[in-house]
Amino acid sequence: MFKINENYLKLPGSYLFSDIGKKVKEFTEANPDKKIIRLGIGDVTLPLVPAVIEALHKATDDMAVKETFKGYAPDLGYEFLRSAIGENDFKKRGVDIAVDEIFISDGAKSDSGNIGDIFDADNKIAVCDPVYPVYVDTNAMEGRAGNYLPEQGKWSNVIYMPCTKETNFAPELPKEEPDIIYLCFPNNPTGAAINKTELQKWVDYANKTGAVIIYDGAYEAYISEEDVPHSIYECDGAKTCAIEIRSFSKNAGFTGTRLGFTVIPKELKCGGVMLNSLWARRHGTKFNGAPYIIQAAGAAVYTEEGKRQTKEQIAYYMKNAKVIREGLTAAGYNVSGGVNAPYIWLETPKDMTSWQFFDYLLKEANVVGTPGSGFGPGGEGYFRLTAFGTYENTLEAIERIKKL
Amino acid sequence: MFKINENYLKLPGSYLFSDIGKKVKEFTEANPDKKIIRLGIGDVTLPLVPAVIEALHKATDDMAVKETFKGYAPDLGYEFLRSAIGENDFKKRGVDIAVDEIFISDGAKSDSGNIGDIFDADNKIAVCDPVYPVYVDTNAMEGRAGNYLPEQGKWSNVIYMPCTKETNFAPELPKEEPDIIYLCFPNNPTGAAINKTELQKWVDYANKTGAVIIYDGAYEAYISEEDVPHSIYECDGAKTCAIEIRSFSKNAGFTGTRLGFTVIPKELKCGGVMLNSLWARRHGTKFNGAPYIIQAAGAAVYTEEGKRQTKEQIAYYMKNAKVIREGLTAAGYNVSGGVNAPYIWLETPKDMTSWQFFDYLLKEANVVGTPGSGFGPGGEGYFRLTAFGTYENTLEAIERIKKL
Repeated sequence: MFKINENYLKLPGSYLFSDIGKKVKEFTEANPDKKIIRLGIGDVTLPLVPAVIEALHKATDDMAVKETFKGYAPDLGYEFLRSAIGENDFKKRGVDIAVDEIFISDGAKSDSGNIGDIFDADNKIAVCDPVYPVYVDTNAMEGRAGNYLPEQGKWSNVIYMPCTKETNFAPELPKEEPDIIYLCFPNNPTGAAINKTELQKWVDYANKTGAVIIYDGAYEAYISEEDVPHSIYECDGAKTCAIEIRSFSKNAGFTGTRLGFTVIPKELKCGGVMLNSLWARRHGTKFNGAPYIIQAAGAAVYTEEGKRQTKEQIAYYMKNAKVIREGLTAAGYNVSGGVNAPYIWLETPKDMTSWQFFDYLLKEANVVGTPGSGFGPGGEGYFRLTAFGTYENTLEAIERIKKL
Repeated sequence: MFKINENYLKLPGSYLFSDIGKKVKEFTEANPDKKIIRLGIGDVTLPLVPAVIEALHKATDDMAVKETFKGYAPDLGYEFLRSAIGENDFKKRGVDIAVDEIFISDGAKSDSGNIGDIFDADNKIAVCDPVYPVYVDTNAMEGRAGNYLPEQGKWSNVIYMPCTKETNFAPELPKEEPDIIYLCFPNNPTGAAINKTELQKWVDYANKTGAVIIYDGAYEAYISEEDVPHSIYECDGAKTCAIEIRSFSKNAGFTGTRLGFTVIPKELKCGGVMLNSLWARRHGTKFNGAPYIIQAAGAAVYTEEGKRQTKEQIAYYMKNAKVIREGLTAAGYNVSGGVNAPYIWLETPKDMTSWQFFDYLLKEANVVGTPGSGFGPGGEGYFRLTAFGTYENTLEAIERIKKL
């Protein structure tokens, strides 16, 4: 008689975005004349840039002819893409990452979920609170999170590191020593970034305590400040303690095109075993590579044209971020984020919970955002707005909020 | 101090294709004048069909314009593709599969590896011997296989079901009751198929014993005989005991384009829990969908043009299969497969091991195949040739073998 993975039954329902959808639907039906502006989504809205489109067409043509047709891709990904990544994302920032330390995948979500495969169930994880839910949920599925405590909105065996205004939206070194530390900077959902000195503390801590850091750098392209590291490997010693996960979703609009990569330096070992080898084995056994066409599109992001065009898109989104940040500040809100990330994190006005503010904003300004409490108890009393709307809508939304 | 998943360390090296590569390289360097013909690969060689190419270009254009740009895809996959699958792969064969029982993925290899996530580590698996290595290796990674016994080439906690000429290349119901049964028909590597009556026995057995069948139907499109089922759901009661995994790799040449799907009927339950819900949760948490462009290409496979064009490709490969099968039979070999699958499975001539025959064929006929022992101890004394070469090369290879 077969047995299921009972850990799945411990997972609470994942209703954040469906609850938002329901509320918006109800409001729209009751108020068909109101124009709703959605600044809640974490999805990009601008189309793929011309350089990427051109590469997709070209790679498609390659697949149409026997001479250039591509079957199974190399396990780690095509070298043309891994070389471009190594050169642009690392070497140009003074970091030396070899092509066989880069693993191409179908995206950062898959990688940040699947990376748990190479670790024992008996590891204690630490996460920021609020946090991108995938880290915790996937560890819960693998039996690492203990039990869910509904009244606290937390898991019994997870170390939560509060990231609130009291901590300046950065985690503090935990009192209890974790085995695996998830860090995401620039951060989803708070939009906060940390500088190199702060990140170096985490690297030193991990090396000292024998922890591994899983560093999610999906929002790296939005960094605008000089002292914010683009890769954890800019820190000394990171190669012996950190895995970095990167994405093409937010820098090049690949949310529906699916491409990402994970870096595991060969220096990262446990008892002499390279984690690079374990991940290579997982990659080769449970994955068959990202599509050739999509890898070719990814390489186009690193061409001169591609870099210029994707930079323009990011500038467009960050212009929205500025509108939101400055507008809300002018309206008297306490606002953070939006400088090195497309997310703006605001404190809800006095006595309002995240959901109360959601309802208030929907009703009074017809603007949709995301309640901070949806990202964990540390998000209660906060609210996320995103820069992925159109400029015109973003302007209008902020004008409406200002008038409240 | 973090701990790795020690199960990975139990895995023996996966050297089959690299060993083949090395031997071929050595031979080529020593005999630069010889023309090697490769009939060992399991990868397609014909380009994507025009209908698919057209869909890729069109979907790429969708991604270039804001109005038709696609961000994150629906968790289960686009409904246009799931509907086409439900209609063509199931309804047309008299099987009723709902669209929310179909999960689009990046391929059958990922699915057949990842499916283990929803099962407890304490499940005993049964596999055919010889077998596609992914089933066993992924279970070993999850701690379900016990220990590897190098002298036997087997895992201590896996039930092996011999598929040799003695069993007519089909497994017999195992004496020890497994919890999870992996079946792949038409089979890789043997090319064998089983008829509906035989498959029904397995469905009945699974329902009776409370086992779940993971049915790999990646080679379904190659079925030519009337009584061979195209889906396990053609059998009565399969919905309460079987998961079916399908692929676009071999029917439409998507090995480098990556698309597949898994069917989990809602009737398949364990103690009242639907496995469909567990997989939906995994899909939503650890995966972000196949690229829109690729899903659009997949849908093109189901258009009238797409069906006609892919059918022609399969006919081309199966013409090769016939050449191999009939040629080897004429040359006195005992041959099976090649009727409902692109794989031909032959007994090595007396007293030769699989590897000895590999060396013999390479040296004397300059033809490369795959030693059967690479797929498990039950493959010893057998050899796999594939129909994915060109017609001209296949003819020539068989002529050479005939002359030996």
